[in-house]
Amino acid sequence: MHKAVHTIVFLTSLFGGSQGHASQPPELTVAPPSWWVGMQSSTLQLMVAGKDIAGSEVTVNSPDVSIVKVASQDSPNYLFIDVDVKHATARQYTFTLRRPGQADTQFTYDIHRRRDGSRARTGFGQRDTIYLVTADRFVNGDPSNDAHAALVDKPQPDKPGGRHGGDIQGLIDHLDYLQEMGFTQLWPMPLLENAMDAYSYHGYAITDHYQIDPRYGTNALYRELSKQGRERGIGLIMDVVLNHIGSHHPWMADMPSADWINNQGEFTATTHRREALHDMHGVAADVSAFSDGWFVPTMPDLNQQNPYLATYLTQQAIWWIEYADLSGLRVDTYSYSDKAFLSHWTHRLMQEYPELNIVGEEWTVNPVITSYWQAGSNPDDGYQSSLPSVMDFPLQATLVDALKNQESWGTGLVELYSLLASDALYGDPYNLVIFGDNHDMSRIFTQLDEDFALWKMAMTYLLTSRGIPQVFYGTEILMANPHSDDHGVIRSNFPGSWPDDKVNGFTGENLTAQQQEARALIQGLLTLRRQHPVIATGQYTHYAPQEGVYVYFKTAKEGKQGHGDGAMVVLNKNAQQVTLPLPRFAAQLRGINTLQRWPDSSEVATATGEITIAPQSATVWLLN
Amino acid sequence: MHKAVHTIVFLTSLFGGSQGHASQPPELTVAPPSWWVGMQSSTLQLMVAGKDIAGSEVTVNSPDVSIVKVASQDSPNYLFIDVDVKHATARQYTFTLRRPGQADTQFTYDIHRRRDGSRARTGFGQRDTIYLVTADRFVNGDPSNDAHAALVDKPQPDKPGGRHGGDIQGLIDHLDYLQEMGFTQLWPMPLLENAMDAYSYHGYAITDHYQIDPRYGTNALYRELSKQGRERGIGLIMDVVLNHIGSHHPWMADMPSADWINNQGEFTATTHRREALHDMHGVAADVSAFSDGWFVPTMPDLNQQNPYLATYLTQQAIWWIEYADLSGLRVDTYSYSDKAFLSHWTHRLMQEYPELNIVGEEWTVNPVITSYWQAGSNPDDGYQSSLPSVMDFPLQATLVDALKNQESWGTGLVELYSLLASDALYGDPYNLVIFGDNHDMSRIFTQLDEDFALWKMAMTYLLTSRGIPQVFYGTEILMANPHSDDHGVIRSNFPGSWPDDKVNGFTGENLTAQQQEARALIQGLLTLRRQHPVIATGQYTHYAPQEGVYVYFKTAKEGKQGHGDGAMVVLNKNAQQVTLPLPRFAAQLRGINTLQRWPDSSEVATATGEITIAPQSATVWLLN
Repeated sequence: MHKAVHTIVFLTSLFGGSQGHASQPPELTVAPPSWWVGMQSSTLQLMVAGKDIAGSEVTVNSPDVSIVKVASQDSPNYLFIDVDVKHATARQYTFTLRRPGQADTQFTYDIHRRRDGSRARTGFGQRDTIYLVTADRFVNGDPSNDAHAALVDKPQPDKPGGRHGGDIQGLIDHLDYLQEMGFTQLWPMPLLENAMDAYSYHGYAITDHYQIDPRYGTNALYRELSKQGRERGIGLIMDVVLNHIGSHHPWMADMPSADWINNQGEFTATTHRREALHDMHGVAADVSAFSDGWFVPTMPDLNQQNPYLATYLTQQAIWWIEYADLSGLRVDTYSYSDKAFLSHWTHRLMQEYPELNIVGEEWTVNPVITSYWQAGSNPDDGYQSSLPSVMDFPLQATLVDALKNQESWGTGLVELYSLLASDALYGDPYNLVIFGDNHDMSRIFTQLDEDFALWKMAMTYLLTSRGIPQVFYGTEILMANPHSDDHGVIRSNFPGSWPDDKVNGFTGENLTAQQQEARALIQGLLTLRRQHPVIATGQYTHYAPQEGVYVYFKTAKEGKQGHGDGAMVVLNKNAQQVTLPLPRFAAQLRGINTLQRWPDSSEVATATGEITIAPQSATVWLLN
Repeated sequence: MHKAVHTIVFLTSLFGGSQGHASQPPELTVAPPSWWVGMQSSTLQLMVAGKDIAGSEVTVNSPDVSIVKVASQDSPNYLFIDVDVKHATARQYTFTLRRPGQADTQFTYDIHRRRDGSRARTGFGQRDTIYLVTADRFVNGDPSNDAHAALVDKPQPDKPGGRHGGDIQGLIDHLDYLQEMGFTQLWPMPLLENAMDAYSYHGYAITDHYQIDPRYGTNALYRELSKQGRERGIGLIMDVVLNHIGSHHPWMADMPSADWINNQGEFTATTHRREALHDMHGVAADVSAFSDGWFVPTMPDLNQQNPYLATYLTQQAIWWIEYADLSGLRVDTYSYSDKAFLSHWTHRLMQEYPELNIVGEEWTVNPVITSYWQAGSNPDDGYQSSLPSVMDFPLQATLVDALKNQESWGTGLVELYSLLASDALYGDPYNLVIFGDNHDMSRIFTQLDEDFALWKMAMTYLLTSRGIPQVFYGTEILMANPHSDDHGVIRSNFPGSWPDDKVNGFTGENLTAQQQEARALIQGLLTLRRQHPVIATGQYTHYAPQEGVYVYFKTAKEGKQGHGDGAMVVLNKNAQQVTLPLPRFAAQLRGINTLQRWPDSSEVATATGEITIAPQSATVWLLN
């Protein structure tokens, strides 16, 4: 017996299921909205939202998809359907929900063929340089989408905390600029729907995990950004938020389970005491006070111990990698999520994409803590992590201190040397993401008190040392926040395409001489990394700083390349020119005939001679 | 054919072989001067010094001792005789050196029976509190030995860097004081001969490894100190210097081998860059610049890579443990010695005495580095250490910062909490030696700007937290160095027995009320540790500091004792009294009926109630 399909008006999201993937009857949303054949794991859990659907009997119109389990939690309006798609083919399937005494409800579900080589994709890595961008503040490529009828937060271009109108089209329009500069990875702050009342431009208060915010564009346009980037050798990194959602997320009006949100769905501030997670003397109460606490009342904290939510977050990440052909993920507020969940989540993702990269944000200057999360670090408590990369906050803070602090026995460049000397803490220090600043702190030029010499040293260091460099948009033209550390000021508009812009960072028009020099340096260093890959990916070897001079080498890793390819970098903090005899570095200069100054190749030294280093400088010497 | 024994006048040391052990013909010195049967290793290497003895044929007057090998290095005046004493009995043996065309030379050698239980001795441990003393500055128990005819550095009681006359007899005379105070281990700075021209009182420029400096006493008196200490429950810790010798050591006039002293026997300063030793990015040149460099020209740096020297240093330590019945060793400038040697040296000692304790000095505030050396830490590079304990310099510096720095999100007590939260770095954080100050830094009262409230918090913390506390002599009466950080001032005379002393730290005479309160607090806390061993040895559990209040517990380790035995300690940095509700600590207070304030036992709270904490205080609450 077949009942008529009945239409129920119910939206779990303002735009859920309506764009970029198979359309559904308006009364249901299904997450993930589609899937693929040939994934490593053949099980899939569909989270279906619809009024009073709990208790439905579920059938599918093909034996190729088998329904393993159907369950609900506390809310009558969600159904979790576990299916096995091992024998599925790429086609559309139809699912039917049947409840006693009710009309049947149906939804269609698309299973796609995967992109060739999808599983084997190589994530961002040491050869890359990442460009971090606040999309709302970069370029407004499509002024027609600045406001959206159903979304409260309208453009306020004059307010630091308001939306300015930048979007995905603006990013697409300037991929040529990124390519010309030499960046090879693009990390935009989150672009998913943030249906919040205010401050929605930053993107970290997600209200729909499967929908690009319409003020940025569409899912299809996001995929187009990825495609056009790849054509230019630029990978796309998605900024993933596992820890929390925006308070206007539909879940807050109707939680699938009573425990979906930590602290009974009520705001309780996190202690930020991440130490508790790896503390052999610690108590469980401090772990939950950290993990279960919220950041702010507008960001409810997800309880990833709920297995349905855990699966939702895992599948969501896989979906976007597959859908948008991503080159990696950056995970916001990494350690604040449940620790056991993170172990599982990273394991599942790396199992699905063994060469992917994922970088977690753990904001602490203590490398004992950052290293705890990286795969291969093998901490004493046996914690298993499959996270390939961590943001190197210790290096960020130490680099600034090393450059600003006076040279002394224990301060200055030696601080940088000492920090790196503890790199054995990490599973793989070469795979850390390193940076001078990011979207949550003062710009590096400001941190260095707008000392241009120090800025050049910082950027040269970051682009020639160990790790994967990340550059915050506008750094290349010395964007600064001298009078305010308001995040909206730190994330000011990139000059070029905004009304009344007289300066154009893209074309160089009206940049000051200093800004032009800055941009040329970044561009030059990125060219150098491309022309001499060993500078990006080679082995880092350093010498203990002496008298304000720090010397390190990037050379071929053992057995990887022949000699003659590599560079020596010299940081001189002194206000005076320094003459550096090279015999101290004999072990690194074995087999080297000459050292050639870059970019001024007319300056050449022999391995047994000496070189002259300008005051307050970072100089690169190519080894031949 | 037997030649007549010929006497050659040759001294490798001013007093070598002359006191406390078997007498030798004056032309020879033998190290070690005696040995024991029944040691774990039956091999022994005798280093014999005597004019032109290299090349001698060596025989011994009993088949119970077998000569395995005889060797020399570059100097003709040393002979290394490897013997096996597996079948030796406790008696005197006679060795004969025979050279072609020369009279035979003989020396006698005593092999003793070991003290019962020698191998199984328990080293200093968590139940203990160590009293560190500069013997020259404590008590002059024997004014007749203040000067010695053959030693240049005469008494200069008014000079901070001169000898003041304190000695072993003075220590013996005041063991009762230590016992009354509650100290259970005595660590005097080195007492071996320092035949230096000046600054010899500190003891770190050793010129005879087998001879107590006659200005301190004799080997026999040192052994008596140990014996009389043991009778009062006080163990003796020897301060061992493996890294260097004094420049007047006879070796400097006649090196056994050309490589006996690093840097060709010439002064080259160490870089002090210990980071190089565990640096995955480092170079060999930085390792040797650290390890092979000297501290000062008067302290030649030993090359422990020389196997004969390595054996000499190993046997020397074992000899003193056995001879003086030591409870442990403190190793000066630990990491500056050769790293491979340290691995071997600690392994050999712990093999010989499995329950011994040895604490290494590694002066860095970075726990990644201090932990590197402790047994069981298992650093990433596979370095094997058998060193049971390390001086906890990171805790020393952090405790002072935590007390002095203003309470804020990232400063104050949270610094202490954070440091301890990384304790998993260590093989055994409970076995670290912790301290507020030592002989090489400003006194803790001075470091805390003579803030008595902070001093009481520091001392209460040190005597109730994790680790083995060490107290520098005079701390108990608030000795300070307000106007100078000269080491000689830091190591001022303990008041009581010196000419014109009006104050007596031993009897309490003329101590200020504050000094008396300080002394009573230390004595009280040491009594508390004895009466409630769990406070000394129990499991440390702490809670993240909140609003300037840090709470930790010492409770029975799992499966060790029943509940009801333990303590809660509360550090309150606030200038105001604080009311602390106890339910936060429910997990630690399970099964506890009452908390009783120590020492004022009239103050009692229930586990579900609250307690009132005085401003700027550390209070101890016994759990019943």
